[in-house]
Amino acid sequence: MVHTVKPDEIIARCKAIAELSEQPGCTTRTFLSPPMREVHRILRVRMESLGMSVSVDSAGNLRGFYEGIRPNASRLLIGSHLDTVPCAGAFDGILGVVLGIGVVESLNGRRLPFAIEIAGFSEEEGVRFGVPFIGSRALVGSADGALLEKRDARGVSMAQAIRDFGLDPSRMSEAILKEPVLGYLEFHIEQGPVLDQLGLPLGVVEAIVGQTQARVSFRGRANHAGTTPMHLRHDAVAAVAEWILAVEREARAKPGLVATVGQVETLPGASNVIAGEARASLDVRHASDAQRTVGVDRILSSAKDIAEQRGLKFECSATQEQQTVACDPNLVVAMEKAVERAGFPVQRMTSGAGHDAMILAQKVPVAMLFLRSPGGISHHPDECVLSEDVAAALQTGLHFLEQFEQLNA
Amino acid sequence: MVHTVKPDEIIARCKAIAELSEQPGCTTRTFLSPPMREVHRILRVRMESLGMSVSVDSAGNLRGFYEGIRPNASRLLIGSHLDTVPCAGAFDGILGVVLGIGVVESLNGRRLPFAIEIAGFSEEEGVRFGVPFIGSRALVGSADGALLEKRDARGVSMAQAIRDFGLDPSRMSEAILKEPVLGYLEFHIEQGPVLDQLGLPLGVVEAIVGQTQARVSFRGRANHAGTTPMHLRHDAVAAVAEWILAVEREARAKPGLVATVGQVETLPGASNVIAGEARASLDVRHASDAQRTVGVDRILSSAKDIAEQRGLKFECSATQEQQTVACDPNLVVAMEKAVERAGFPVQRMTSGAGHDAMILAQKVPVAMLFLRSPGGISHHPDECVLSEDVAAALQTGLHFLEQFEQLNA
Repeated sequence: MVHTVKPDEIIARCKAIAELSEQPGCTTRTFLSPPMREVHRILRVRMESLGMSVSVDSAGNLRGFYEGIRPNASRLLIGSHLDTVPCAGAFDGILGVVLGIGVVESLNGRRLPFAIEIAGFSEEEGVRFGVPFIGSRALVGSADGALLEKRDARGVSMAQAIRDFGLDPSRMSEAILKEPVLGYLEFHIEQGPVLDQLGLPLGVVEAIVGQTQARVSFRGRANHAGTTPMHLRHDAVAAVAEWILAVEREARAKPGLVATVGQVETLPGASNVIAGEARASLDVRHASDAQRTVGVDRILSSAKDIAEQRGLKFECSATQEQQTVACDPNLVVAMEKAVERAGFPVQRMTSGAGHDAMILAQKVPVAMLFLRSPGGISHHPDECVLSEDVAAALQTGLHFLEQFEQLNA
Repeated sequence: MVHTVKPDEIIARCKAIAELSEQPGCTTRTFLSPPMREVHRILRVRMESLGMSVSVDSAGNLRGFYEGIRPNASRLLIGSHLDTVPCAGAFDGILGVVLGIGVVESLNGRRLPFAIEIAGFSEEEGVRFGVPFIGSRALVGSADGALLEKRDARGVSMAQAIRDFGLDPSRMSEAILKEPVLGYLEFHIEQGPVLDQLGLPLGVVEAIVGQTQARVSFRGRANHAGTTPMHLRHDAVAAVAEWILAVEREARAKPGLVATVGQVETLPGASNVIAGEARASLDVRHASDAQRTVGVDRILSSAKDIAEQRGLKFECSATQEQQTVACDPNLVVAMEKAVERAGFPVQRMTSGAGHDAMILAQKVPVAMLFLRSPGGISHHPDECVLSEDVAAALQTGLHFLEQFEQLNA
């Protein structure tokens, strides 16, 4: 099987959809916002032209069904999300849906022993309601009542947003996967520099890494910057600086660990006042939950040491944990074979970012294929994909269908 | 001569004036704000009761004249400021004025070969118009036209604020010192922990240290905190942290140097994004301008090195310089003798904060006497002075008058 859709056509479709935005001049498309209607319309037309039956579920997910050889065959889900961050690029999320449809299109009407369902998730980024993965949560049955009561910045509840789009939030449970689902496949841009640095088009995702997020605070003593000698200071900025370097050192020393302090706030934050408090964010990720936990422990312990040595108080004010989610081992092997058959070098990797696959993994075996992100750029208008990499992904997708068929024979 | 005013009475007067505020529950008194009228009234009544003639000049300075033995004798100016920072303590500034009046009161009507003028400066903190030292600038003739056009947060010009207080800004030049002035004496709380740490009541100020203020920026590359391996980062937060420690190291290594990064801002400042830019303030002070310049050069050069090693761009976006102002050597010696005669250990020191004396030094020999700041606390409601230190300052003030008399005989 050779893909029959031109890669430039896939890229052009993504770029056309990027024009559908809540704000002029840049791509912003949050959960069930007005431009989402036109996204649905365009994708529906394309899927219906391929003989697929299309519906929108009560979580606002666009779902296109491509029947197998036999009616009621078990299905392979292929999907990603249709929403974006503010001022996004043209490929994060949407490429996975457009590529999935492109794979079906390349079947040229041929039916497989399993059905294929394309899922365009309504929400993954968490922008509108501060909660990510609304779309995929609905499929696994974790988009519950509490979620529907969340309100956006304008005070509109999620339930109301669903009603405003012409859907019925009371029928949310109908979005849950019921028919036998054999697996979930997600194409996604890497959103990182690894493949680009290696000069490789594709990456086979083994796991979506676990994450610890925390807010920390160093409290010393605010004082006059001119009248307080260096040896009598309890400078919160100096303490947080020492800790930030300890965070970096810890992550650099442990393969696969990434640790980031992205946000620092100094109080009172005046140029002529020694800061009495410094607050900072901490984000730690590793494919091994155990390694991550050890890393976090060491990072927090070094914070306590630094605070003690400097006569400050350290507090870790909030911590959120997310466990590592493994892709299905059989599907990882199937994907490796597909990449190989398509003629590309196999590169296993982990995903440092969260994806819908992470949610689907609660119910079905999942596989993910990364496409190289040139320059590692994502969540930015400069985000792009190479035509040759899209061709590689299409071809790998078709080979994956073959592998998947053998696996489920 | 022994002081006849009780130190607790001085403290009580300062605390009573601290009640005169623009906001309930804390002391905030900016340039010619409404509560300043009552401050003037209270101090005027006291000074007139000592046989002083009192006026308010066109810059809003309260000026009380205590004639010498002969009319038209040259004068010693004793003063400090009447304004405060927001939510201030009860002693910064006002104590110098109340103590000055207390010294005159302790003369019990005795006249000296020189006259004494008490100056209660209208403004030193720079809160209302973002420009400090308005009061003392007027005395040396540098409160010029441009200054009068400055506007406060409500859009009121300084000229209008002066008119609103019932004064005439066009007569600003009349505030300039015209009569022969032999010297300027300022009592002030230390606003730092040095005397408290040494267990000493008083400090003889040799110089008000020079200052360099700058804004710096490290620009790296914003990126995804989960998908960007440590070795491929250009993290602006890590760079600024390394530099903050270099700033601290430099200042710790050089006696008398203080260097502070009080404000840090990270962009975009999200917990899951490696910061693309970090901005920070820099404040460097030393009694020697040459030492300060060397310190600043080394600090900025280490910033460049750090940026280069990490593949970031460094920019020093704005720099302001203020030269060190020396107190008059003869008056410093006179003050040392006065402290000694009053029975206290002599401690020479520099002032890390700016004071009105710095401005007056442009035209007249200046002397400053610091009173211990318990806990080093200032610009805070907890700011205080010890009764015994106020007694020491009063007694030293009287001995200073004797030394001053000998010096100008």
